[in-house]
Amino acid sequence: MSIKIAIIGCGFWSSFQTAAWKEFPAEVDVVACCDPDIDKARALATRFDIPHVYGDAKSLFLNHTLDAVDIISDVDSHAPLSRLAADHSVQIICQKPLAPDLKTATEMVSYAASKGVSLYVHENFRWQAPIRRLKQILDQNLIGRPFKGHLKFCSSFPVYDNQPFLAELEQFILTDVGTHILDVARFLFGEASALACQTQRINPKIKGEDVANVFMVMGQGLHCYAEMSYASLWEHESFPETYILVEGEHGSVYLGPHAEISVTTQDGTDRESVKVKWFSWADPEYSWIHSSVYSCNKNILAGLLKNGQVETTGDDNLRTLQLVFDAYESARTCKMMQYP
Amino acid sequence: MSIKIAIIGCGFWSSFQTAAWKEFPAEVDVVACCDPDIDKARALATRFDIPHVYGDAKSLFLNHTLDAVDIISDVDSHAPLSRLAADHSVQIICQKPLAPDLKTATEMVSYAASKGVSLYVHENFRWQAPIRRLKQILDQNLIGRPFKGHLKFCSSFPVYDNQPFLAELEQFILTDVGTHILDVARFLFGEASALACQTQRINPKIKGEDVANVFMVMGQGLHCYAEMSYASLWEHESFPETYILVEGEHGSVYLGPHAEISVTTQDGTDRESVKVKWFSWADPEYSWIHSSVYSCNKNILAGLLKNGQVETTGDDNLRTLQLVFDAYESARTCKMMQYP
Repeated sequence: MSIKIAIIGCGFWSSFQTAAWKEFPAEVDVVACCDPDIDKARALATRFDIPHVYGDAKSLFLNHTLDAVDIISDVDSHAPLSRLAADHSVQIICQKPLAPDLKTATEMVSYAASKGVSLYVHENFRWQAPIRRLKQILDQNLIGRPFKGHLKFCSSFPVYDNQPFLAELEQFILTDVGTHILDVARFLFGEASALACQTQRINPKIKGEDVANVFMVMGQGLHCYAEMSYASLWEHESFPETYILVEGEHGSVYLGPHAEISVTTQDGTDRESVKVKWFSWADPEYSWIHSSVYSCNKNILAGLLKNGQVETTGDDNLRTLQLVFDAYESARTCKMMQYP
Repeated sequence: MSIKIAIIGCGFWSSFQTAAWKEFPAEVDVVACCDPDIDKARALATRFDIPHVYGDAKSLFLNHTLDAVDIISDVDSHAPLSRLAADHSVQIICQKPLAPDLKTATEMVSYAASKGVSLYVHENFRWQAPIRRLKQILDQNLIGRPFKGHLKFCSSFPVYDNQPFLAELEQFILTDVGTHILDVARFLFGEASALACQTQRINPKIKGEDVANVFMVMGQGLHCYAEMSYASLWEHESFPETYILVEGEHGSVYLGPHAEISVTTQDGTDRESVKVKWFSWADPEYSWIHSSVYSCNKNILAGLLKNGQVETTGDDNLRTLQLVFDAYESARTCKMMQYP
């Protein structure tokens, strides 16, 4: 028996998550989609053969008995929509960032729990195949205890073209990209014990910060530097790749351009190109980003079907969000945040 | 008329500074050298044709009327030796770090000033030809206002082989390398307004820290990350090169391996190999390090001859040392240091 899912929010990104759900025809039935801009909902429904279309979420819940909703709408709508879902005992999958502030996000997670409803976050960066492979290499102890990490997501990609609302956000790159990158840092290295951050706005046409640099102590004392920027003009445009260098007591691992990983030890350097599952709906230029949507959905599906552990639960994601919002606080106060 | 200089401290590094002085035969006369290990002093004297050799500094000052001394001895001896020089109205050139703590360094600078004696620091990294060229590119405004800098001096070079005392230092990489790297950061970007640092010891055979990462706000708000490590096993050994990436509002400059600089703007990337003055006494593998000794001496010589401005005065170097010792303090307290 398949589970019934509805999509709420039918903008640019929803097509990838919907396409990914369609990869599980035996387990998932996308029964409806919903957007205040009904034309967007209709377009998504047409493209993915979704039988029902709604302009408001209340009608959606009135007309369907759902197992889960996948909320892919603007951040401000996440809290009311997830509350509505919880009130209807419908499990929640929510786009990142969960909420515009930590308090709201915490309330969302608590409210879902109080209603006995699971809340999962569609946090997909940690599901990118090259990042999974890098984690595997660390776990295999090939380079010994890692003591330093450097994550870099810097480009001059005009991200505002596809998602114009990003230019209007008062808080931009930390909430948009920082949620991903700091989550990857936690995934790779464990929890943070200290954090310092600085932000800047370089592009004069946007409202929020487009440069953020976060310096953390993580896990068993590893130093982590996470660089994010949409104002970085390089020789080789790197969007949407995350470059990651990890140094250990006996070597280093580097995830660089084109999903290539090199592992250096005293014995020399091994290089591999990480294979990425290919989907017809994925843009070849973004194949491992789009492929990570599939892997993220697959992991969440295990939770929905009660046959596996979900990594990106609401509870887990609150720890990532704490780092994100503390990063703003650190930048504002010029202080190092500590987590005893 | 040439000025009379004596070398105090005749260990490993003194041969490069002495060789560099010998490049100014019309202006500089190296009249004596001195080391408590008289064999070392004799060896240096023989190699560089230095007429007088001493086992203690007091005899040196008693027997010669000097214009300047170049103190290239262990850090603990810098203060008493520079005091002795000042008492004899002899100008002082001192190896970095000036002193084992900021208080002692400050007293050294004050004492020299009180005696009307100039005190210069042999701080040579900022005199490396590729770093001078990078600064020139920034000053030419080719990439617009710089907003981010990343300095990297990380290798697994067994630096203890040539300089075994380094393994015994309680405070190692920040005092040894940090003095250089944080000075380069100041040279390129201006003064720091905030600093956070973390340190680690990875090599179990040494006493001090061999990994230090410093996160700073500099100049007009630029974010600077300075990475230092002697525990970094890369694919390509980088010692003794400093890699520097600077991002500006309109492009980026990268100083990478083999003194190659690339400048990227909207118009594309220009690449150049920085030419380094070659000296017969320089090790080809370290040509631009050794060449920087010449340039540093040349700048200090202008001060000694009163015909030019010295960049690395004691006063200036105290600002670098403040960052170095505050970096230890930040690492110890896990706090961000601020400079209002």
